[in-house]
Amino acid sequence: MNILIVHAHNEPKSFSSALKDLSLNHFLTKGHEVIVKDLFEMEFNPVPQRSDFKTVLHPDYFHYMKEQVYAFQNNGFSDELTQEMNDLEWADLLIINAPLWWSSSPAILKGWFDKVLAMGFAYHPRDKKFETGVFKNKKAFCCFTAGGSEAAYSEGGENGDIDMVLYHINHGTLYYCGFEVLPSFLTWRTHLSDEATLKGYLDQYQQFLDNLDNAQKLY
Amino acid sequence: MNILIVHAHNEPKSFSSALKDLSLNHFLTKGHEVIVKDLFEMEFNPVPQRSDFKTVLHPDYFHYMKEQVYAFQNNGFSDELTQEMNDLEWADLLIINAPLWWSSSPAILKGWFDKVLAMGFAYHPRDKKFETGVFKNKKAFCCFTAGGSEAAYSEGGENGDIDMVLYHINHGTLYYCGFEVLPSFLTWRTHLSDEATLKGYLDQYQQFLDNLDNAQKLY
Repeated sequence: MNILIVHAHNEPKSFSSALKDLSLNHFLTKGHEVIVKDLFEMEFNPVPQRSDFKTVLHPDYFHYMKEQVYAFQNNGFSDELTQEMNDLEWADLLIINAPLWWSSSPAILKGWFDKVLAMGFAYHPRDKKFETGVFKNKKAFCCFTAGGSEAAYSEGGENGDIDMVLYHINHGTLYYCGFEVLPSFLTWRTHLSDEATLKGYLDQYQQFLDNLDNAQKLY
Repeated sequence: MNILIVHAHNEPKSFSSALKDLSLNHFLTKGHEVIVKDLFEMEFNPVPQRSDFKTVLHPDYFHYMKEQVYAFQNNGFSDELTQEMNDLEWADLLIINAPLWWSSSPAILKGWFDKVLAMGFAYHPRDKKFETGVFKNKKAFCCFTAGGSEAAYSEGGENGDIDMVLYHINHGTLYYCGFEVLPSFLTWRTHLSDEATLKGYLDQYQQFLDNLDNAQKLY
């Protein structure tokens, strides 16, 4: 199996990075192929710009999605984005590994969604989305480290149920592109946790990965 | 009244930009003060980095939120971020004006949230959030142009109810910082709309702004 881990934490010694390393080692040990995209290390630029394309559809009006479709039809993405798209096509499983900032992706990860999940390539709102999505033969899940508590992200909690909070990513982004979306792996308040709690999270993630084949899909 | 419009569309001729201009002119005509932050024009960098701070709390471990708190306590934000924070403090009303990309903010806008709504300055998870939030005397609302249809973003629609989709912004971000969050103004599929439909949206937005004082808060 081919696994793509898209990692978006600025600190290599963070717990999010430790979870990324755990999944990397897990899949390598099992004989799978793994590519890690460390977006901060790559200095991935999340801001849409003309240089994302070798082609130009409308020189006087920059409609990003229309330029994406035109680039897709004319082999016109930048070399950097073409590489990202090739690696995503190669993958059977996509893991999104990041801290949860403002109930969502850090901007650098959001920009990876905005640019790599390009209209034409990753979806088309007319006929390639959800159950007819481009990546319907691939799986995906998120591994987020949240700063809040599990209670705060439960139904009735002050931050709202985590499945509702993550709906815009799990359903609105990953499932929109056709991925079979597995449950997210979440940790809570690791910046305030002691060593035993952190060790417990690593053990839980190992079990989560061991049982991935049996996971019931969210979407 | 002081109004801050944070605008995040890459194309000045876009309909999102027309809505921004409409609100700008509306409030200026009424004698209010308005500042527009055109994040693309400003080349706002949404990626967290050491240069966001003049201070350094932990040189060997970059925990962004802890650096934010330390910078807040020691006047240590970069001049650029200090200016953003001053302008936000100045505002009585914040308008988020952007296209809806992947059921969320464009990355450049997400980065503005990540960096300007800094821990310490805009919230503290212990005691300054929601009804005790820093900006509890300010109002905010979002003006989003969505690529999908209104039906798709309704309850039971394929994209999910828009209030649930936007929960991570309206509740998880704006209300978290204490803002009184007003209903969002939304347009649908404007890239496929004829002139009459677009004119109708501008009229609707004008009415929305005219009636803002009577709007019932979402959160």
